[in-house]
Amino acid sequence: MASVAFLGLGVMGYPMAGHLRNKGGHDVTVYTRELAEKAQVRGFSFLDAPVSGGQAGAENGILTVMVGGEQKAFEQAKPLIDAYARMVGLMGPAGSGQLTKMINQICIAGLVQGLAEGIHFGKKAGLDIEKVIEVISKGAAGSWQMENRHKTMNAGKYDFGFAVDWMRKDLGICLAEADRNGAKLPVTALVDQFYKDVQGMGGKRWDTSSLLARLEK
Amino acid sequence: MASVAFLGLGVMGYPMAGHLRNKGGHDVTVYTRELAEKAQVRGFSFLDAPVSGGQAGAENGILTVMVGGEQKAFEQAKPLIDAYARMVGLMGPAGSGQLTKMINQICIAGLVQGLAEGIHFGKKAGLDIEKVIEVISKGAAGSWQMENRHKTMNAGKYDFGFAVDWMRKDLGICLAEADRNGAKLPVTALVDQFYKDVQGMGGKRWDTSSLLARLEK
Amino acid sequence: MASVAFLGLGVMGYPMAGHLRNKGGHDVTVYTRELAEKAQVRGFSFLDAPVSGGQAGAENGILTVMVGGEQKAFEQAKPLIDAYARMVGLMGPAGSGQLTKMINQICIAGLVQGLAEGIHFGKKAGLDIEKVIEVISKGAAGSWQMENRHKTMNAGKYDFGFAVDWMRKDLGICLAEADRNGAKLPVTALVDQFYKDVQGMGGKRWDTSSLLARLEK
Amino acid sequence: MASVAFLGLGVMGYPMAGHLRNKGGHDVTVYTRELAEKAQVRGFSFLDAPVSGGQAGAENGILTVMVGGEQKAFEQAKPLIDAYARMVGLMGPAGSGQLTKMINQICIAGLVQGLAEGIHFGKKAGLDIEKVIEVISKGAAGSWQMENRHKTMNAGKYDFGFAVDWMRKDLGICLAEADRNGAKLPVTALVDQFYKDVQGMGGKRWDTSSLLARLEK
Repeated sequence: MASVAFLGLGVMGYPMAGHLRNKGGHDVTVYTRELAEKAQVRGFSFLDAPVSGGQAGAENGILTVMVGGEQKAFEQAKPLIDAYARMVGLMGPAGSGQLTKMINQICIAGLVQGLAEGIHFGKKAGLDIEKVIEVISKGAAGSWQMENRHKTMNAGKYDFGFAVDWMRKDLGICLAEADRNGAKLPVTALVDQFYKDVQGMGGKRWDTSSLLARLEK
Repeated sequence: MASVAFLGLGVMGYPMAGHLRNKGGHDVTVYTRELAEKAQVRGFSFLDAPVSGGQAGAENGILTVMVGGEQKAFEQAKPLIDAYARMVGLMGPAGSGQLTKMINQICIAGLVQGLAEGIHFGKKAGLDIEKVIEVISKGAAGSWQMENRHKTMNAGKYDFGFAVDWMRKDLGICLAEADRNGAKLPVTALVDQFYKDVQGMGGKRWDTSSLLARLEK
Repeated sequence: MASVAFLGLGVMGYPMAGHLRNKGGHDVTVYTRELAEKAQVRGFSFLDAPVSGGQAGAENGILTVMVGGEQKAFEQAKPLIDAYARMVGLMGPAGSGQLTKMINQICIAGLVQGLAEGIHFGKKAGLDIEKVIEVISKGAAGSWQMENRHKTMNAGKYDFGFAVDWMRKDLGICLAEADRNGAKLPVTALVDQFYKDVQGMGGKRWDTSSLLARLEK
Repeated sequence: MASVAFLGLGVMGYPMAGHLRNKGGHDVTVYTRELAEKAQVRGFSFLDAPVSGGQAGAENGILTVMVGGEQKAFEQAKPLIDAYARMVGLMGPAGSGQLTKMINQICIAGLVQGLAEGIHFGKKAGLDIEKVIEVISKGAAGSWQMENRHKTMNAGKYDFGFAVDWMRKDLGICLAEADRNGAKLPVTALVDQFYKDVQGMGGKRWDTSSLLARLEK
């Protein structure tokens, strides 16, 4: 049984720690950042291991985990992470997990805006959105977001999922990092401003798919 | 055996007609638009049936077909279309096939730009793109484009697939239709201009995933 | 006294024709497009001569006139145009007047959006907009739009001026022409979509400065 | 004769201090930030007083100065600032000078991109840019940037003026402040990314008008 110092964000972290305990059978302490910093000097290995898959993924133990750190530490942690993950990868040295998560969020920003514009257009054109998505979702326009969000988008339901406030926090980190590494993110920067519109509509806690609500207001 | 008047675009249409003949066992005449117009007065039923799935989909008979027209005509044509399609749907009255195709292209525009920005960022960050996509492609950022285009994008290879010139023609139709129905397509309009950059780089026949080349020039 | 066949848009054309009559002392017939086409075969010289300066400019005879056509025809027409213009220029062969007007509209689209974002930011920051504009309008951010529109923008007053519907018609022409000549207009294309938001807000006849209303809704 | 503690950025600050000395006849000490902080505890009044007008404006003493601070301190400082300013305004309490400067930069971002797209279009259309600007610069598209930058833009000359690196630093501050006050800056965010393209082209020290170079590459 490993002794695990676990540092996780609230809504995501607690289910993740729960899986470590219940599914992995480990003695898990959920540390605050302060305690974690103290722990570091006592010989712990550290990994950055952000996740993707949303609250539902955390609760069901089927997250995607992007790890940055030493190979040896990763191998030790892998069986633990498997408790709450469906997909785990060591992306490179410390920080690489965070960078991979940034790519994930950048991809989502453009993708969800495209999906929102498509559904918005379809509604204006008087089409049956369910039928449209059924047909196109297996082809070149298909995506996880299309499969998993089109029904709620079509119904104007956004009170769940990955909150716009969190997305904007993540996109802010992406844009700042891109200023350092020179990557150009024109649509990411624009969609970040569109999310600000959603915040202004009262959607701070709405799912990221609420970009559609903005087009419809 | 049905008598089919088939009107298709060159690179896509000929393989589609081939499947109708070889797989469906039908007597197929590929009509020009002029002949088709003459045919109409002699009692044929007409359907608009644009496809998605690219040249490879046409050649392998696994296209997605979005049909607009009368229910009866659709039922007659369905077994024929099945010869080259994996997914067929009647979207509504005549014209609905074209409108569904527009939604498909609108979704792709934002999606591919997001994917291009993500891969561009990953390369600037020094990450192993193959490893990154392997990990994130099953999660919330995942898409057909990510699965099927990341390798060629990472290799800077664009001499295949759905050409930028065709995409711009389609997006022009989408934007004009949106002017009529009032749908707002900010990112579609912007990405359409970005594709013009690609055309200016000599990429008129490059695959739509070449939005990455534009960020890297 | 010249015989002038004058073909003008309603709200702008009638005051322009009025100046030709009253200030220029000419016998002016305002032709419809159909009559103009018939006239052409009887030896008239033709000039394209779009204007800038808005309804107020037309009423006060202080328009900017951008002419395309033959030098000789321009010289004949110049004294007439002076009746309603403050600034007249021969831009090149037939069509050059229209192209110059397009540049004018392209410049305005980005400029007004920038101004709208600036005033929007200032209001959110709690500043006195009048005082701000008084100070910055003579510097590097200064513009005709800033001088002439900031008061009405700050007051949320848009029921006058150059209508959003006309602007979108013009921008559509610009974007189509840019597709032919290869010019890239990313912000023009985006602002054109933003104007669609304004149309959706009931602002079809609002002045182009109503891009601010869109940010504030 | 006043004792002035002056804290200014290099290329702008030294000419400004020079005017205070030579034109205003004051005993001026150019303080570093460290010295300024020590000075504060000894009873000095502080004003934030950012400027607009570029290096040329600083050298010729014709800057626009946007002041934030107490009315009394402003009145004391006004005669001094007049030495290097053509326009001075007290915008509100401390910080208001900086906020006004942000509005200035936001307005410029959209304006210059619009101007760049207009000139780019005109060159593609084969028009004489000098003639075009002569005609349109007094009308609704006119601006300080059009008057003062079109010649150098048309000549592809950017090795002067307000550097892209400084502009991006300013726009970063604007976007961060807008995140706090809720203002939406879609085109500002997009143009900020476009300036990153210019940096990548080697244009870190080019004038902000180099957005045209980006469209032409």
